[in-house]
Amino acid sequence: MKPIILTGDRPTGPLHLGHYVGSLKNRVDLQDSHDQYIIIADVQALTDNYDDTTKVRDNILQVTLDYLAAGIDPAKSTIFVQSELPELFEMTTYFMNLVTVARLERNPTVKTEIQQKNLEKSLPAGFLTYPVSQAADILGFKANLVPAGEDQNPMIEQTNEIAQRFNHIYKTDFFKPVKGMPGVAGRLPGIDGKAKMSKSLGNAIYLSDDADTIKKKVQKMYTDPGHIRIEDPGKVEGNVVFSFLDVFDPRKEEVAALKEHYQRGGLGDGTLKVRLTEVLNTIIAPMRERRAQYAQDPQAVLKICKEGSLKAQEKTRQTLKEMKAIMGVGL
Amino acid sequence: MKPIILTGDRPTGPLHLGHYVGSLKNRVDLQDSHDQYIIIADVQALTDNYDDTTKVRDNILQVTLDYLAAGIDPAKSTIFVQSELPELFEMTTYFMNLVTVARLERNPTVKTEIQQKNLEKSLPAGFLTYPVSQAADILGFKANLVPAGEDQNPMIEQTNEIAQRFNHIYKTDFFKPVKGMPGVAGRLPGIDGKAKMSKSLGNAIYLSDDADTIKKKVQKMYTDPGHIRIEDPGKVEGNVVFSFLDVFDPRKEEVAALKEHYQRGGLGDGTLKVRLTEVLNTIIAPMRERRAQYAQDPQAVLKICKEGSLKAQEKTRQTLKEMKAIMGVGL
Repeated sequence: MKPIILTGDRPTGPLHLGHYVGSLKNRVDLQDSHDQYIIIADVQALTDNYDDTTKVRDNILQVTLDYLAAGIDPAKSTIFVQSELPELFEMTTYFMNLVTVARLERNPTVKTEIQQKNLEKSLPAGFLTYPVSQAADILGFKANLVPAGEDQNPMIEQTNEIAQRFNHIYKTDFFKPVKGMPGVAGRLPGIDGKAKMSKSLGNAIYLSDDADTIKKKVQKMYTDPGHIRIEDPGKVEGNVVFSFLDVFDPRKEEVAALKEHYQRGGLGDGTLKVRLTEVLNTIIAPMRERRAQYAQDPQAVLKICKEGSLKAQEKTRQTLKEMKAIMGVGL
Repeated sequence: MKPIILTGDRPTGPLHLGHYVGSLKNRVDLQDSHDQYIIIADVQALTDNYDDTTKVRDNILQVTLDYLAAGIDPAKSTIFVQSELPELFEMTTYFMNLVTVARLERNPTVKTEIQQKNLEKSLPAGFLTYPVSQAADILGFKANLVPAGEDQNPMIEQTNEIAQRFNHIYKTDFFKPVKGMPGVAGRLPGIDGKAKMSKSLGNAIYLSDDADTIKKKVQKMYTDPGHIRIEDPGKVEGNVVFSFLDVFDPRKEEVAALKEHYQRGGLGDGTLKVRLTEVLNTIIAPMRERRAQYAQDPQAVLKICKEGSLKAQEKTRQTLKEMKAIMGVGL
């Protein structure tokens, strides 16, 4: 039996290169060797978008297109939509008894988000408790591996705690430890040089960007503000163009030589940016092509989600049935 | 269309006379004129019994027997088990976004329970949030009326707040206000004279008590400790025997005369207790008979729960479907 992967995204906007290196690339690489379930977490997205359901619903299609564009093969990976699986919410309810309010309030990811979104004073219960729902998403598939960005580590820790507590209370070894899996590169900076590429910061290159947009974004990219004339020596650290070349350019020796030349002086940003534009287009052009093809038939794409959801539901139904038998719950 | 009732109990122990006057009697009286759903809230019971699921499961049968004994007719009322309806937990998840953690922490019923159960330091998330789940139980049936003890008023208030918030956020009038319905009498004291009859206080007369047990419990009943000799004047206030006669004895004029006599002096506790024992047995004897009959075939009783759950699920499935359409959630 292949090891099981559970991974996914909140459908709140198009996916960008940060998603690609953080998780998507891994998903494409692992879909042959793993039984992979990819959740479009629309219900989790509601925890801070409950008053903007149109955005969430529209992005189910967009995110699925991004998946297919990036190379997720629906014949190998099961793409599903969270709101199609009521069993996950019943599981969440059982898990809610196994975690304290104080523990949820200590979750570093949630704490940061509460600050960022200014939710301190009117924190919705659904937002505080979404890590429990996320634990149900993972444990509902009895997943072994979660390829996700490093900011998701506290969620995986929380999931393992709930799993252990379940095993302890109900004297079972039903749930096995689940492991996170870091991306193919560390955290990708935004084109403005900020630490994180993010839609809300407006500093992202999307998998759905056209060639012209990518060119323009690379041209705007933060380099070394002290590097005024071509002959000046330039800095490589914090230079986003080099950060991207490190991640995306497979010709590592050439990149090393370019860095040396840049630091020495005599290499212009323009030359580097042309190179990076080509590198990024090499990766994104085939995605663009696949996306355009799938986008011609949105109904067929949603059918992939629908069929994936039915397949995923079989799995969570079985897990819930087993869970309830172990707990001794139900008629 | 008949107005809809949602009411029920946590299956954590046998039902007693406090349940009877608080809600059960109303349910029996209203089952012809209302479309009545009675929830055996086993999942809610888990919020403080997650480590004692055997008790909860065993009491599903016992509580159903109590219902049938009390005169609930499964041909008129739908008895169902909460854990059979995953839709309720999906609804709960959506409602969790519409209520703040601070609001839940202010719930007077939950606050009192947290103190009683010593949960301050390690409050399970499931316990803090169970009123949201209860709101889903009620709103899942679009209930108009909830016959329940007065201690449930804060829950009905919370439910109406969630309903209003849903209507406001999603620009709809889908949920109508739900009303509580007080019992046929005020709060019934325990046989020890304490304010509330309760299993945990060990001061209850159960609907399943046999005649001898009822006799013994009435004999132990708190009266007036100052009423030593028969000829002494006795107090009626706080005298549990009179409290019970007020509630259960239909011969109101005779009871009024007995009170006068007691206060004047010359009427012994023994005489009153014999009368009360007869009064209670008149009510409980037919219950005992029905209970014994149903108890002969536990599988048939559980079948009532199973069939009721299937019928109830149709209703909640429909509500959830409509809710999701209004919210704009789902594929």
